[in-house]
Amino acid sequence: MIILGIDPGIATMGYGIVNFFGNSFNYITCGVITTPAGERVERRLALIYDKLNRIIKTYSPEAMAIEELFFNTNQKTAINVAQARGVALLSAERAGIPVSEYTPLQVKQAVVGYGRAEKHQVMEMTKTILSLPAIPKPDDAADALALAICHSHNASSKLFGYNSINPTKRTGGK
Amino acid sequence: MIILGIDPGIATMGYGIVNFFGNSFNYITCGVITTPAGERVERRLALIYDKLNRIIKTYSPEAMAIEELFFNTNQKTAINVAQARGVALLSAERAGIPVSEYTPLQVKQAVVGYGRAEKHQVMEMTKTILSLPAIPKPDDAADALALAICHSHNASSKLFGYNSINPTKRTGGK
Repeated sequence: MIILGIDPGIATMGYGIVNFFGNSFNYITCGVITTPAGERVERRLALIYDKLNRIIKTYSPEAMAIEELFFNTNQKTAINVAQARGVALLSAERAGIPVSEYTPLQVKQAVVGYGRAEKHQVMEMTKTILSLPAIPKPDDAADALALAICHSHNASSKLFGYNSINPTKRTGGK
Repeated sequence: MIILGIDPGIATMGYGIVNFFGNSFNYITCGVITTPAGERVERRLALIYDKLNRIIKTYSPEAMAIEELFFNTNQKTAINVAQARGVALLSAERAGIPVSEYTPLQVKQAVVGYGRAEKHQVMEMTKTILSLPAIPKPDDAADALALAICHSHNASSKLFGYNSINPTKRTGGK
């Protein structure tokens, strides 16, 4: 199953694509969609929509995992992030890709094994799980990969009834 | 100039279209785009996008006036409204329609003449300005018309240097 993780943003939207089958991962690609800060919001949204549509066309993901939003920060930024997220959801719907939403807590739980993990731990585990030579840059791309891993975890939990990402949990070891 | 006013929402998005030329208005149409509450968000966004695209194709507006968002209410609702608003902006950009944003204060100022006007005053003035037999229903449609009027006012202020909607201001009367 090819999974597209999305870390929503208006200036930088991270994406990460993995193939999850059996119980293992193939890293496919990751990166960021960026839009110029000085540009009109509607133009930036159209740029995101076009680029995301192109990514979906290229890699044919079968699921989208996107971060759930919480508004703690600057209101103006938050509204723009939500607007960009809306466009990403539209892109998935148009391509017929089912969307799942995950909180940062769920991602940490799925990738590292506990919800209070530090950001760098999530990134280290993402690198390890995907057998990458280094943590992907920028952070938004790595976050998107973690979301994709989180989704595969959830999908496989439902299928097999155990935590496929943290095999230690299966055996009760460590 | 045909102006499309948009009152953004995920469950109910109001739209109102007026033709403003010389110094007078022709009411064209107004209404709401509604989406079912039980439906997936991405599906609701796609419904809004499709219907708005159809409205734009039918009436060929030359400008979009959309309400600026402020997040005072329920966070979940606010995020969904912003996501729907993002899709509306995308629709405008795709159609090559320039977008202007107005705060409720600016709308009140433009339609009634002062920023502390009550909602029903804005609606009464909208009815009067557009020579309508009654206040349009539902409120979201009336709000969208007020946004369109607000934009025409701003456009004409820039052109003629005076308040075209409240002619009493021109003569210094009342």
